[in-house]
Amino acid sequence: MPQTFLVSNRVQFRDTDAAGIMHFSAFITYMEQAEHAFLRSLDMSVMKFRIDQMEISWPRVSVQCDYVAPLRFEQEFTVSLTIEKLGRKSVRYGFQFSSNGQNIAKGQISAACCIIRNDDLSSIPIPDAIRQRLLPFSQDDGA
Amino acid sequence: MPQTFLVSNRVQFRDTDAAGIMHFSAFITYMEQAEHAFLRSLDMSVMKFRIDQMEISWPRVSVQCDYVAPLRFEQEFTVSLTIEKLGRKSVRYGFQFSSNGQNIAKGQISAACCIIRNDDLSSIPIPDAIRQRLLPFSQDDGA
Amino acid sequence: MPQTFLVSNRVQFRDTDAAGIMHFSAFITYMEQAEHAFLRSLDMSVMKFRIDQMEISWPRVSVQCDYVAPLRFEQEFTVSLTIEKLGRKSVRYGFQFSSNGQNIAKGQISAACCIIRNDDLSSIPIPDAIRQRLLPFSQDDGA
Amino acid sequence: MPQTFLVSNRVQFRDTDAAGIMHFSAFITYMEQAEHAFLRSLDMSVMKFRIDQMEISWPRVSVQCDYVAPLRFEQEFTVSLTIEKLGRKSVRYGFQFSSNGQNIAKGQISAACCIIRNDDLSSIPIPDAIRQRLLPFSQDDGA
Repeated sequence: MPQTFLVSNRVQFRDTDAAGIMHFSAFITYMEQAEHAFLRSLDMSVMKFRIDQMEISWPRVSVQCDYVAPLRFEQEFTVSLTIEKLGRKSVRYGFQFSSNGQNIAKGQISAACCIIRNDDLSSIPIPDAIRQRLLPFSQDDGA
Repeated sequence: MPQTFLVSNRVQFRDTDAAGIMHFSAFITYMEQAEHAFLRSLDMSVMKFRIDQMEISWPRVSVQCDYVAPLRFEQEFTVSLTIEKLGRKSVRYGFQFSSNGQNIAKGQISAACCIIRNDDLSSIPIPDAIRQRLLPFSQDDGA
Repeated sequence: MPQTFLVSNRVQFRDTDAAGIMHFSAFITYMEQAEHAFLRSLDMSVMKFRIDQMEISWPRVSVQCDYVAPLRFEQEFTVSLTIEKLGRKSVRYGFQFSSNGQNIAKGQISAACCIIRNDDLSSIPIPDAIRQRLLPFSQDDGA
Repeated sequence: MPQTFLVSNRVQFRDTDAAGIMHFSAFITYMEQAEHAFLRSLDMSVMKFRIDQMEISWPRVSVQCDYVAPLRFEQEFTVSLTIEKLGRKSVRYGFQFSSNGQNIAKGQISAACCIIRNDDLSSIPIPDAIRQRLLPFSQDDGA
């Protein structure tokens, strides 16, 4: 069983909209916030992380979200992160939003492993030292 | 050929991030901004639009975006909207971001046609008076 | 000595800008976030809080911020809230941003005590039950 | 009489909040948007603008806003910019928000003229070539 990484949040007023609920674009930023907290928990960072003399960043390739139920101001919710696919050069994270046992939303972010050289990004295979840290959270075997 | 609806924008500073590019969540808000401008161009609104004694809103069901190339501060770009699917009770909008002839990103928003009664939303078939206005922008025949 | 209310935060990527620092407008949202957490800590809410058969909200009258030093992605910082002025019908909160012992920024939010009736807001004197909860954090005596 | 610079806007959904109005922090971003459009209108940019072999940026020193009346979703409004003070090393912009002849809000941004060298910012006297462009919008004589 892959591990999951959990982040607890509360709907901030700035994330609500005139329909009285959390704006749908804010779900995207809470997914990213969970991804970044996840990388920090593994002593990494999404941006300019140095390993093996390389500087690694993870630019976004795609994002997706399905909305099931709304969240309201000050409501507490949990974002649960897993790795749906640990590819050779990219990662697809899966996110589940829930609140009080209710399913709220479900989303994905795909990010490419890139090396930074002279301000330019190039896609590279995920370095093994990084892959080993991600593997316990992966639903596939990374093969 | 279905019609397309175009909106011109410029990358605002508040939409950039520390990677020096437009933050990926801002694409979602520009898609929504194009959708709302589109509805206004047809004398409608995404929220509490009154027609045939009903109050109609279009809550989001899902959103998706694929990123191809970055946008930088003050760069001009165009969002082109079409209706990819005019369903019985929902609409799927397609969005194409381009800048200077370059493909930047491609996304979708699905929105459900809902009636508001006593602050509650219920999904309903798209009223014919609305469907007629959307039809010229639809890639399918709405059947 | 008035009490202070502290909130710990970390700079989120969505709050950074192309200058590589937390965008200056994000300080405003972190001040508000501290205000709302403060009210919750006293079993109140900034919006539609019910007390003595009244529904109370606190719309903003003015906001102000002086910037001293920048914050960068993932940097931890603390927002410290006090009540600079507990007026008859309004409150002026003072906020101090610091990180690692360094002074980062200093701001204010003034909010008016309002009652909601039929969707209309009217300014009222702060009800005594609310004033008693705010008093320990006030730098003046509220006279 | 100093000139004013006008920008027309419409309240976007992402800028509204659960109180049904434009969130107070969004006024700050519309002030900045007007400032940047103003600089572009003079063939300048707020960031990394090159003149006389120097790279100039304008980091924010302080911001302030007084709120008079709310703005609602899709409401049109105008931001009017003047230069309240053209100092030796900084500029204080004044902003007036209005909608349909009604006064909505009034704000200020102070920005310091800085030169960028090796990623470091240092405050400098405003170069004369820049001062000449700003002068027609200044309420004082810049002395």
